[in-house]
Amino acid sequence: MIYETIVTTANSDGRPHIAPMGVRFEDGLAILAPFRPSTTLDNVIATRSAVINFTTDVRVFSGCVTGIARDWPTVPANAVPSVRLADTLAHTELRLADMSEDETRPVLRMECVYRETHAPFAGFNRAQAAVVEGAVLVSRLFMLPPEKVDSEIAYLRIAIDKTAGDAERTAWNWLLQAIDEYRARALSTSALGS
Amino acid sequence: MIYETIVTTANSDGRPHIAPMGVRFEDGLAILAPFRPSTTLDNVIATRSAVINFTTDVRVFSGCVTGIARDWPTVPANAVPSVRLADTLAHTELRLADMSEDETRPVLRMECVYRETHAPFAGFNRAQAAVVEGAVLVSRLFMLPPEKVDSEIAYLRIAIDKTAGDAERTAWNWLLQAIDEYRARALSTSALGS
Repeated sequence: MIYETIVTTANSDGRPHIAPMGVRFEDGLAILAPFRPSTTLDNVIATRSAVINFTTDVRVFSGCVTGIARDWPTVPANAVPSVRLADTLAHTELRLADMSEDETRPVLRMECVYRETHAPFAGFNRAQAAVVEGAVLVSRLFMLPPEKVDSEIAYLRIAIDKTAGDAERTAWNWLLQAIDEYRARALSTSALGS
Repeated sequence: MIYETIVTTANSDGRPHIAPMGVRFEDGLAILAPFRPSTTLDNVIATRSAVINFTTDVRVFSGCVTGIARDWPTVPANAVPSVRLADTLAHTELRLADMSEDETRPVLRMECVYRETHAPFAGFNRAQAAVVEGAVLVSRLFMLPPEKVDSEIAYLRIAIDKTAGDAERTAWNWLLQAIDEYRARALSTSALGS
């Protein structure tokens, strides 16, 4: 089972880094598998620590995936030299147990050393789920045919129109903006090449 | 903004009723709008109470929408003559403030009188979101062309295959079973009519 979360880390100077990441749990350990190159990976190696943030603020997912809004408020973690999102429903602090080397995608197995719940879950929201799906789509633009992207966006937009609040609409618009900019860049690159 | 939740109520004898329902909040009140006929509506009128359960157990959504598994453990509510799910991340207890009459879909405006958080949110799971979308689809089979149902199911299945746990697979299989049974019934009715 894979959960879509926000992983926060800090470098050895304490500088925060925020990254959306799928996480799974195995034998009580959290498993992270960042693709190289990865600031999260560098920070985990430097500090042997990371934090999983369980947030429903989809602007953080969309902002980081598109690069439009990468900086979100963080506060120091409790038990590890890292940071957590200031605004998250819950978080778990992790210490590195072991790492399987891999040229493209090393696997970090991490022990949960501290957990805290900050606010209750407010229920499923279909627009939040649509943003999460849209963020996955945007992270794969380079490998997907444009027609497939358009048809998935059209489908996901239904839930946005019916069930979104302001945060979800902002997050969704960032995804649309990223798709437009990707296509404009692809067009100008192909014009240069011709 | 609409949240997909499980609303629990009890009749005047204390008999529980469990129903998936979209809920929104307005001026601090929870707004429920059940379609008639509705046991939830009858129970709210009888007890002036209801409970919103914020759960990520998608078996409850799928089991109730399909009718395959309607009974889930409940415990008495704290502040109103109603019940809550025994297993939920959080719940809010409601008292009826006022009701706008409507022949098809009356609107219940309800005051939040008690809240409790039981467990932390574990992060977005794409398979859970797919079950929620699939449950919406199954509740509308009577008005959707079969090709549209098939193409949406094919799309949603991707997230199930990639990210589901046991509970999500069970919930998903109930949805597929309900679609099969609906089509078998439609076929036998049309054979009788011909």
